[in-house]
Amino acid sequence: MRKWILFILALAMVPTAKAQKRSGDEMAIRTVLDKQVAAWNEVNIDEFMKGYWKSDSLLFIGRKITSGWDSTLIRYKKSYSDKAAMGKLRFEVLRLDFISQEACLVTGKYFLTREKDSPNGIFTLLFKKKKGQWVIVYDHTS
Amino acid sequence: MRKWILFILALAMVPTAKAQKRSGDEMAIRTVLDKQVAAWNEVNIDEFMKGYWKSDSLLFIGRKITSGWDSTLIRYKKSYSDKAAMGKLRFEVLRLDFISQEACLVTGKYFLTREKDSPNGIFTLLFKKKKGQWVIVYDHTS
Repeated sequence: MRKWILFILALAMVPTAKAQKRSGDEMAIRTVLDKQVAAWNEVNIDEFMKGYWKSDSLLFIGRKITSGWDSTLIRYKKSYSDKAAMGKLRFEVLRLDFISQEACLVTGKYFLTREKDSPNGIFTLLFKKKKGQWVIVYDHTS
Repeated sequence: MRKWILFILALAMVPTAKAQKRSGDEMAIRTVLDKQVAAWNEVNIDEFMKGYWKSDSLLFIGRKITSGWDSTLIRYKKSYSDKAAMGKLRFEVLRLDFISQEACLVTGKYFLTREKDSPNGIFTLLFKKKKGQWVIVYDHTS
């Protein structure tokens, strides 16, 4: 009898364990984005870039398509050459859609506050778990 | 001995079978896009919409975020109210990245040729296999 109770309890805990894992992954992904925002607001693009997969397969889509981590870094440094151009960044995460245990599509909005303007837009990010770390492997921002 | 040869042959065929499955999926996805283009150029938005997942969870991101199949249909019909507004559509598929056996991220460009202008842009589509059919569940076009 006791064995059965333990068995039923164990079964009941399976979805909980899964939900906990997911919520851990969600937290890890949100932390990557929080760190990116913090780095940006400290005028530190190198630190900001740590949120991205350091690979030639990284894809960044803005007005045009940029392939690879190196080119993405160059693009950021060119487009945001100083503190004034970088302004103050804020993200608003709208949705996290887990596609698998190691892939998650994240939808959100970005808001940049600068002296002269306040650009904002929408981003779609594909996060993947690479070597135990969640990183952005694909970024479409418009 | 013969058994071993058969076993090794069978093993060697595993990647081939997988590649064939993938290429079948790729073809199915490309067909969905081809059908969308054909429908568009026949001024048939209802037919074009068949490429999308008929669900409230469909997400369409253009200048703003549209949630759900119904709202996406309304948006298309409003933005492209007649043959002149729809013009002639062409897709250029750049990349298919399979995330799992049932999910694929597709990157491409669209080109619209109209009397007065020729808008074009980049799209990121998440395709999922739903009830055996590949459909767009997420569309970010800019």
